[in-house]
Amino acid sequence: MDAKEKVGRYEFVAEPFHVDFAGRLTMGVLGNHLLNCAGFHAADRGFGIAVLNENHYTWVLSRLAVEMTDMPRAYEKFSIETWVENVYRLFTDRNFAVLNAEGKPIGYARSVWAMISMETRKPADLFLLHGDEITSYICADKPCPIAKAGRVKVGDAQQVAEYHTRYSDIDLNGHVNSIKYIEHILDLFPLEMYREKTLHRFEVAYAAESHYGDVLGFYREQKSENEYDIEVRKNGTETAIRSKVVFE
Amino acid sequence: MDAKEKVGRYEFVAEPFHVDFAGRLTMGVLGNHLLNCAGFHAADRGFGIAVLNENHYTWVLSRLAVEMTDMPRAYEKFSIETWVENVYRLFTDRNFAVLNAEGKPIGYARSVWAMISMETRKPADLFLLHGDEITSYICADKPCPIAKAGRVKVGDAQQVAEYHTRYSDIDLNGHVNSIKYIEHILDLFPLEMYREKTLHRFEVAYAAESHYGDVLGFYREQKSENEYDIEVRKNGTETAIRSKVVFE
Repeated sequence: MDAKEKVGRYEFVAEPFHVDFAGRLTMGVLGNHLLNCAGFHAADRGFGIAVLNENHYTWVLSRLAVEMTDMPRAYEKFSIETWVENVYRLFTDRNFAVLNAEGKPIGYARSVWAMISMETRKPADLFLLHGDEITSYICADKPCPIAKAGRVKVGDAQQVAEYHTRYSDIDLNGHVNSIKYIEHILDLFPLEMYREKTLHRFEVAYAAESHYGDVLGFYREQKSENEYDIEVRKNGTETAIRSKVVFE
Repeated sequence: MDAKEKVGRYEFVAEPFHVDFAGRLTMGVLGNHLLNCAGFHAADRGFGIAVLNENHYTWVLSRLAVEMTDMPRAYEKFSIETWVENVYRLFTDRNFAVLNAEGKPIGYARSVWAMISMETRKPADLFLLHGDEITSYICADKPCPIAKAGRVKVGDAQQVAEYHTRYSDIDLNGHVNSIKYIEHILDLFPLEMYREKTLHRFEVAYAAESHYGDVLGFYREQKSENEYDIEVRKNGTETAIRSKVVFE
């Protein structure tokens, strides 16, 4: 199998209601496109969510790290490439490149996925998926020149926001939508922050699922001038997600 | 000019993160698609926002009414048709049909738009737009079998929610995004409402623009078993928008 078949490429336009006040595509919308591309790429190669669901398995996003040098502007075309970098027994690494209208990379992303049983919610063995077919799509030589997601450890951070989950937060699995978390985290910063600085890197690690009615507490710790670690705890105790936001 | 050139038709897929807990496309996402279709249709015919902007004018959505008998489900294909029903001196009526994967109508929408000066924010004369060319696209004979948006009058309704506008609410014009209002209004109802009932009709009339830092007060009055009138006031006084939500 050649590299072309291993790498999927999908075209987009930055829609006018998908950009922020400065006319830049929002990280939440970009995150949604990345997850859709993962879905298209997997489905086209026989290990998409529809096929998995038939066998009572599903993909679960465990981590996502996105690093951008630029963002598509309103009405601009851009494309996203995605490929599988590695497959382990319980996880797979999927990478992304975001290309501007001229085909020049303006950012990259790394994601980590697990396949879980829809009944037990426990991880399943990826090497048993379709007779190990997923490993034939591994494309280890395509560069993804950004760091993997690091450890986020929020110490005695103060709670900076509290959020009661609402109808629009809940996805078709009954959980708080992965994309909505990105929006809520970026909303912890005032508009002025986005006027003065650029969102350079965004990391999120999903630890536990939240549901409708859960109260999310957002804890933030400033690590350096432009770097913030954020932990979201549900109902006062359990960590739902950890995130890192880096401006420049 | 034949009817085909007057009516634009655009294809979509209900993306997995664009459906609600019940797997139905959300009204906010549908609203976004409707506005995009309006933009595509106008741009293809020479009166899109890019051409208007060059002359320091822009389109402003004044009213939107959507009535659905069904909603696309996750991963389902659907399409949206749009056409100009009428052009008045200061307003134009644009209609929409939403068709399921089989091409059968599952809903309709009506919208009212004004063209305003970007400097004065005052409405401009549509008959002077490109030498009256917009009127050649009027398509009065295509049916749109739903009622026009009615009067919403909230009396001594109680404030049911207060919302501080955040980074993600603000669009590239610096105003609260028209689509975000739809989300915030539908979030006034508990998830159980959407489990027991179906959102049948949604109306919104935009009265005044809100900005970052504005505090929005949501006032709701139940008109009958399934009908609610909602008014959003900014900073305690001025009406920003009026809305009607009808379940069935």
